[in-house]
Amino acid sequence: MIKKYIYGNPFPTEAVVENIEVASGEQEVFKLEDGAFLFTMSDDDIVYGLGEQIRGINKRGWQYVNWNFDNPHHHEDTRSLYGSHNFIIISGKKTFGVFFDYAGEIVFDIGYTVRSKMTVRPASMNLVLYIIDGENEKDIVKQFRGIIGKSYIPPFWAFGYGQSRWGYKDEHDIREVAQKYKEKEIPLDSIYMDIDYMERYKDFTVNKERFPDFMKPEARVWFGAKYKTLMDLGIDGFWNDMNEPAIFYVEDKLNETLNKMQELNGTNVGIDEFFDMTGRVGGLNGNKDYYSNFYHQVDGKLVNHKEIHNLYGMNMTRAANEALEKIKPDEKTLFFSRSSYIGAHRYGGIWQGDNKSWWGHILQSMQQLPALNMAGFMFIGADVGGFGCDTTEDLMIRWLQYSMFTPLFRNHSAMGTREQELYRFSMVDDMKEMIKIRYCLIPYLYETFMKAVDNDDMMFRPLGFDFPVDDEAKSVDDQLLLGNELMIAPIYKQNAKGRYVYLPEDMMLIRMRSYSDYETEVLSKGHHYVKTDLNELVFFIRNGKSIPWGEPASSTATIDMSKLTRLGFVV
Amino acid sequence: MIKKYIYGNPFPTEAVVENIEVASGEQEVFKLEDGAFLFTMSDDDIVYGLGEQIRGINKRGWQYVNWNFDNPHHHEDTRSLYGSHNFIIISGKKTFGVFFDYAGEIVFDIGYTVRSKMTVRPASMNLVLYIIDGENEKDIVKQFRGIIGKSYIPPFWAFGYGQSRWGYKDEHDIREVAQKYKEKEIPLDSIYMDIDYMERYKDFTVNKERFPDFMKPEARVWFGAKYKTLMDLGIDGFWNDMNEPAIFYVEDKLNETLNKMQELNGTNVGIDEFFDMTGRVGGLNGNKDYYSNFYHQVDGKLVNHKEIHNLYGMNMTRAANEALEKIKPDEKTLFFSRSSYIGAHRYGGIWQGDNKSWWGHILQSMQQLPALNMAGFMFIGADVGGFGCDTTEDLMIRWLQYSMFTPLFRNHSAMGTREQELYRFSMVDDMKEMIKIRYCLIPYLYETFMKAVDNDDMMFRPLGFDFPVDDEAKSVDDQLLLGNELMIAPIYKQNAKGRYVYLPEDMMLIRMRSYSDYETEVLSKGHHYVKTDLNELVFFIRNGKSIPWGEPASSTATIDMSKLTRLGFVV
Repeated sequence: MIKKYIYGNPFPTEAVVENIEVASGEQEVFKLEDGAFLFTMSDDDIVYGLGEQIRGINKRGWQYVNWNFDNPHHHEDTRSLYGSHNFIIISGKKTFGVFFDYAGEIVFDIGYTVRSKMTVRPASMNLVLYIIDGENEKDIVKQFRGIIGKSYIPPFWAFGYGQSRWGYKDEHDIREVAQKYKEKEIPLDSIYMDIDYMERYKDFTVNKERFPDFMKPEARVWFGAKYKTLMDLGIDGFWNDMNEPAIFYVEDKLNETLNKMQELNGTNVGIDEFFDMTGRVGGLNGNKDYYSNFYHQVDGKLVNHKEIHNLYGMNMTRAANEALEKIKPDEKTLFFSRSSYIGAHRYGGIWQGDNKSWWGHILQSMQQLPALNMAGFMFIGADVGGFGCDTTEDLMIRWLQYSMFTPLFRNHSAMGTREQELYRFSMVDDMKEMIKIRYCLIPYLYETFMKAVDNDDMMFRPLGFDFPVDDEAKSVDDQLLLGNELMIAPIYKQNAKGRYVYLPEDMMLIRMRSYSDYETEVLSKGHHYVKTDLNELVFFIRNGKSIPWGEPASSTATIDMSKLTRLGFVV
Repeated sequence: MIKKYIYGNPFPTEAVVENIEVASGEQEVFKLEDGAFLFTMSDDDIVYGLGEQIRGINKRGWQYVNWNFDNPHHHEDTRSLYGSHNFIIISGKKTFGVFFDYAGEIVFDIGYTVRSKMTVRPASMNLVLYIIDGENEKDIVKQFRGIIGKSYIPPFWAFGYGQSRWGYKDEHDIREVAQKYKEKEIPLDSIYMDIDYMERYKDFTVNKERFPDFMKPEARVWFGAKYKTLMDLGIDGFWNDMNEPAIFYVEDKLNETLNKMQELNGTNVGIDEFFDMTGRVGGLNGNKDYYSNFYHQVDGKLVNHKEIHNLYGMNMTRAANEALEKIKPDEKTLFFSRSSYIGAHRYGGIWQGDNKSWWGHILQSMQQLPALNMAGFMFIGADVGGFGCDTTEDLMIRWLQYSMFTPLFRNHSAMGTREQELYRFSMVDDMKEMIKIRYCLIPYLYETFMKAVDNDDMMFRPLGFDFPVDDEAKSVDDQLLLGNELMIAPIYKQNAKGRYVYLPEDMMLIRMRSYSDYETEVLSKGHHYVKTDLNELVFFIRNGKSIPWGEPASSTATIDMSKLTRLGFVV
């Protein structure tokens, strides 16, 4: 059951598409005090959700500031990332879901200031609050997904492996990547381009000299008739298209800083002045104060940007999606974005932003998957190998072993970092086997994705969602259930020779070096240490279950659906 | 057996104090090629050492740049920290130690570029190479420690708990902290001050107005006759005392930047120009190029700074230590520094630098302990609760449960971050119990520390050092042996309800809520999942061993050595 409460004069975000009556009676779950919603947590309460945010599956113990922000530092002390997904489930003594439908800044203090206290503070008290009771966490998510509308479905080929880099500067670079993948016989569905194709990074203008005729369909057949070469029109492009250079600086603040610099010129600069200067320059980019002077015209009224900031990404995604539907009405279009609010899940996927080549970012990505599914985002995935910083061979292969299970499976990296196309590594043959396994998994992944979208289910779930009375399952934060058949437990530590896993029921361990070279072993419910070499993928099939298993293909176009076998308990 | 090889014309670092003959015959372990030392690693080789560096106990899979650097970002992609400790042990097919005695920049590529290749590249081929064969890893370390001289021993009271913060601005602040600790009856031995006592951060001058008479002995009796208030004279103080403002910027580079800023003033600043500007300012601090014009007079010859950069910290530590020995010849003086080279271990301890309030930094600190011991640094510890960023209650208590085992046990944080004196948290009573347990441990820790220094042993060891034929023990990177009696396995994940441990032999689990409220259980060799609540310390006593166990004391001065009992197998 969903109860809706209206506070103040909320801006219509269109996150919720179903018509819901305002609840009769007072809202009794949260205490309102001093402009904030208060809730006292029990010791064992778990808080799930918040979509794309840092830290663990259980969000307790941090202060999260939902304010969409281009932040490449997904660190433990980060408070804001690209998206604002204000849906949480409090699970424990009492289990219920809450959606704070508010597009301005909203701060979730979930036991940060005081361990037992949750305080949710919107910048202004103009919002719609939804409180959702249900049989269990899965049911609560289903109800919520039911009111926010069906999730975006990408084209089938988007489940293939993609290669990308911020730095492919011209047609020659792209052709070379395609050629090298072909030579090594590594399956590949797409090559992505970052902002390099733009003129001075200002808009969608294609730099004709570097990519002659590039926008034409013919250009997209470079890598074989059935392959598509797709441009990554990520948020950088959109921000600039929307004439928002202010995200980097505003004129008066920049001038103030430059004038301050000028005062220093020629003087003996002390340590205080030096750090004042570097602080000022460092604070120029993304400063929140910039937005206070922006107003938007909405239904004849002026709305301050601060009240609707978090909708920007969604409306861009929506506009792009709707435009592309007009251009190519008969085709599904791949579209994923970065900045988002709930509602954007109807128009595209999201990639998990500018992560780093850190082992910890395998785990961070995985921990976001169920929270993103809760918020409706289904076509999701992280930059494989890490975007910023230099990757290593072992990190890359371990990352492949994790990301091969996510719908979006794209190797992407930043200009200036170590090049990480798979053919550059000494372990390329082992990496190739991992890509081939992905293609064997695609029939299962696509089917599971489609079913989850159809039924408003989650594709990725914390163990506690399926085993709610198993305390040990509920505390696991580095394994996930995938569909109804799999459990994934990737390795995210360098030089690890294996890892610990908790099995909430008997499961079949698969240890796989290639699609045809693997062992299986049924392990009993409980804790296990599972050995795995660097070239070995390990995952689990749930008790009594099996999955369709394809043969390797050079691309999604050549997957032969007539050659599926079953992998698991009933082979 | 130690073999010494001389390349070029090395600068005498004085890291090694024993006279060792140059080996006869050619050096055959490393291949020399293109100015670098090459070694091919076997698949299962483990590389230990590098002292204060990032990543795991096994250093394989990254490129480390030993160049002392004031770097508050101890991240996975970091390459240089404060110290350069060029001693490693390669353990596996062939086990041996290597010390590259070179005080300029030296790059260790340990399977970063190609997984199986180690490449060690000094900036110039002027160095002394020591290759150490021995019975096992422990024997190799003992031999190495034998030639670099005995480690520094601090006063006994330095093993007490200390409270520090960059931001205690005057006598009033200090008195208040002392008073609050007293009110809550939390044991405390010292209150530290950061750079706040300095005038304009320029030198050791005490700001008289803020700290009247402060340097006098009388000032140090504030918190009871037996307490000492000690100033943290960290590297910031020393760098400035040595007239090295150039570490922050050099005149011409700063002017160039300021002039560049001036050109932008009044223009329409594009994205490229904007990032050029922020990049220039960001690159001012600690730029390596600054040093190329510095020369030092050594024995009548000019030596470029680049060749001896990494000795700076050591010589400062040494100078300070020698000066203090003259001022107070009959007393041990607490001294710890940040920047260091091997040799500095004879003159002081080191704290592990400006870490962050990140869960991962509990683990990072622990992983450095054995490597620091290998390099002779024994009085060591990390800023408890984290220096940069905001801490949380649960992080603080888990950090106490780890750091209570390190010789240096100091809560320290940066100005601008959340205040983290223990009395500020709702769990203060649980935290107090952890501090009391520390005081019960001090007799054991001090004895273990002194024995390790006397015998050139390590206080903290990877499991593989004591269990060299146990492959599972060798791959453990989040547990350590402490002395001959304990194994520590701290919790370093938020919201964890327990953790996995590997026991290389039968051990006694201690689960402790207070010094007198605990359970013990003997667990068998193998893998275990150990439950632990947030207020519970868990550690292990090795098979058949026991440790002296004191009673809680309000400070080290009141520890009653006549009241020791035994904790462990023979209680």
